[in-house]
Amino acid sequence: MHRRKFLQAGTLGGAASALGAPALAQNRRTLTMVTTWERGADGVHDAAQHAADSISQMSDGAVTVDLKAAGELVHAYDVFDTVTSGQVDMYHGPDYWFTAQHPAYAFFTTVPFGMTAAEMATWYYQDGGRELHDRLGDIFNLKSFLAGNTGAQAGGWYRRLITGPEDFQGLRIRMPGLGGKVMMELGAEVITLPGAEVYEALRTGAIDATEWVGPWADERAGLGDLVSYYYPAGFHEPAGGLTLAVNRDVYDGLIPAHQRIIEIASAETHQWSLAQYLSQNGRAMQRMARSRLTLAEFPADVWDAFGTAAAQIHQEHLVEPLYSEVYDSYRRSMRATSRWLSASEMPYRTQRDRLMG
Amino acid sequence: MHRRKFLQAGTLGGAASALGAPALAQNRRTLTMVTTWERGADGVHDAAQHAADSISQMSDGAVTVDLKAAGELVHAYDVFDTVTSGQVDMYHGPDYWFTAQHPAYAFFTTVPFGMTAAEMATWYYQDGGRELHDRLGDIFNLKSFLAGNTGAQAGGWYRRLITGPEDFQGLRIRMPGLGGKVMMELGAEVITLPGAEVYEALRTGAIDATEWVGPWADERAGLGDLVSYYYPAGFHEPAGGLTLAVNRDVYDGLIPAHQRIIEIASAETHQWSLAQYLSQNGRAMQRMARSRLTLAEFPADVWDAFGTAAAQIHQEHLVEPLYSEVYDSYRRSMRATSRWLSASEMPYRTQRDRLMG
Repeated sequence: MHRRKFLQAGTLGGAASALGAPALAQNRRTLTMVTTWERGADGVHDAAQHAADSISQMSDGAVTVDLKAAGELVHAYDVFDTVTSGQVDMYHGPDYWFTAQHPAYAFFTTVPFGMTAAEMATWYYQDGGRELHDRLGDIFNLKSFLAGNTGAQAGGWYRRLITGPEDFQGLRIRMPGLGGKVMMELGAEVITLPGAEVYEALRTGAIDATEWVGPWADERAGLGDLVSYYYPAGFHEPAGGLTLAVNRDVYDGLIPAHQRIIEIASAETHQWSLAQYLSQNGRAMQRMARSRLTLAEFPADVWDAFGTAAAQIHQEHLVEPLYSEVYDSYRRSMRATSRWLSASEMPYRTQRDRLMG
Repeated sequence: MHRRKFLQAGTLGGAASALGAPALAQNRRTLTMVTTWERGADGVHDAAQHAADSISQMSDGAVTVDLKAAGELVHAYDVFDTVTSGQVDMYHGPDYWFTAQHPAYAFFTTVPFGMTAAEMATWYYQDGGRELHDRLGDIFNLKSFLAGNTGAQAGGWYRRLITGPEDFQGLRIRMPGLGGKVMMELGAEVITLPGAEVYEALRTGAIDATEWVGPWADERAGLGDLVSYYYPAGFHEPAGGLTLAVNRDVYDGLIPAHQRIIEIASAETHQWSLAQYLSQNGRAMQRMARSRLTLAEFPADVWDAFGTAAAQIHQEHLVEPLYSEVYDSYRRSMRATSRWLSASEMPYRTQRDRLMG
C-alpha cells in the first residue's frame, strides 16, 4: 500500500477537483469510496463491497459506487482526511483509527470492556448512538453510518499459558490501540508492528504473544503453527464496528431517496457483515477444536487486572465533553441491554448447549 | 379483529381482482401489505411499518406500500392464503403461524431449543437459511424475507416457584405452539386462549401460568400485578423471526432495483426490530429488577425435562423431506456459530458484567 504521488506532492486543495468531482452523465452519478482495506481482504473488504453494490443496485445505477481499496487511490491512513476535506466522496473503515481526530470515535468501533455487536446495534439504532455519530460528523463535515461488524475479536495467541496477572510482566506482546495501553499497565512490553510483520516476529521470538482478529483470519494467518495457546475470549475488542462515512456536502446534495438508500444499505451491511464473521468464525473454531491447539481462557484474576487497567484508561479521556457524553450514553445503553441478555439469552444458551452437546 | 364481510361471503377468486390489482399511475405502483398485527402494536406493527416506509422512501415513491393492519382488509389468520393466492401483494407476520401449510415454516420464526436472533441472522444471511425460505416459497408462490425479530421471548409468569419438573404435573398453563406440546409432555394442562383473555384468566385463577412476549410487552400487559414469579429465560421461543412475504408474480414483475430494495429493506428491518426489542426489554428488565417481582430461573432438572420433550417433538416431523433438510441445515449452522459465541462473547460478557456490576 502506498500513497499516490499526486497526494504526496501536491497540496490537498489542488487535488480536490480531480479527486472529488462526481461524474455526472444522464442524471447518473459515480461516488468514489476509498477504504482502509486491501482489495479482497476477507470480511472487511467484503463489507465495503457489499455496501457499494447495494447502493448501486437499489438506486438502479443512479448512484454508482466506485470502490478504491487501500493504496489504489489514497493510503489507508488518509481516508478520513481526504473525505472530510471533500477530495473523495466516502470512506469505509474502522473509526477507531481516527481517535487522533477525536477520541470519541473509538466507541464506533470498539473499546476495552465495551459492547458486543448486538449491544452496539441496540445503542446505535435505538438508543442515540447514531445521533452521537452525527455530532462527530458535524465537526468533520461527515455523514457517518455503521456499515459492518467483525463481532468479538479473539483474545489472541500466546506462547505460554497465562496463569495469573504476573505473567504479563515483561511479556512482549503485539496489541494496538487501547488494548495495548491496558497491557502496558500490566507490565507487558507492547511491540508496535504492522500486520504483515506479525508472523515473522512470532516465529523468531521477537514477540511472545499477539492479538489478531478472530478464528477465521487467525487460522489463515497461520499463527497456530508457531504457538500452542489460543484465547478465543479477550477484553480488548468485544466488537469491531466499521463505518461508511460520506462527505457532508456530497451527502446533502443527494435526493432524499438516495440518502435513505445509503443509510439503509449501510445498516443492512452491518448485519450482513456480522453474520459473515459469525459464520466463518464458527467453522474455524470447530476446526481449531479438533486441532492440537489448546483453547484457553484467562483466569478470573487476570480479568480483574484487565478491568482495573481499562477503567483507568477511560478515565483519562473523560475531561473532553463530547467524549464524556458519548461514554455516558454508551454505558447507559450497555447496562440496560446487558441486563436483559444476561437474564434471558445467556442462561438459555448455557442450558441449550449443555443439553445439545 | 374481524374479517371483512366480502371475504367471509365471497369466493376468494371473486375478490382477487378487487384486492390484488396494483394501482398504476405515472409508473408508480402501490403494493398492499396485510399484517397479522393490530395497528400500533408495539414492536411487531412497528417492524411492518418500518419496512413499508423504507421501501417507499428508497424507491422515491415508485413503490408505495400501503399497510393494512389485522382486520383492516383481512383477518390476521388469512394473510398467508390471500398473498399466496395473489389477492393481496404481501404480508408481514410470523411464519410459524403457517406450519399447517408447511411444518418447516417454524424455523423462520423460532423452535424450542432453537437459535438466538444472532444465530438466526447468521444462518439466514450466510449459511443457506434464505435459500431454504425460497424453497418453501417455490411451493406457495411467495418470495419471503426475514423482516423483524423480537429476540428471545421470556419464560413467562408463574403463580408459584418452580422447584422441579414434577411441578408441571397438572399445572394449567397458556403456551401456544410447540412450547405447549413440550408442556403437555411434562404433564401440564395446556389451555388455549386468545391473547386478549390471558389477563382475566390469570386473574381469576383459570390458569396458573402463562408465557407472553418479553419484559417490554409483559410489563404493559400488567401480568406482574397478578403473580409474583417471572422467568426471563425460557426454552420455547429463543428468538422471534418475522417475515415479509411478497406474492411471487408481483415480485417477479418488479424491476431488479425494486426487488433489491424490498430485500434490503426487509433485512435492515430485521436488525432494526431486534435492536428495538433489546432496547425496550433492557429498560423494562431494569424496572422489574427494582420491583417486588421475583426474577427466577428454572432449575437444571427442569431444563433437562424441557430438552427431552423438545427433542421428541422435532423427531415427529423428520419424516417430511424438506422439514428434515431445513432442520439439518439449521442445526449445522447453530452448532458452528454457537461454538464460537460460547468461547468468545459468553465468557467475555460474564467477566465484563461481573467486573462492571
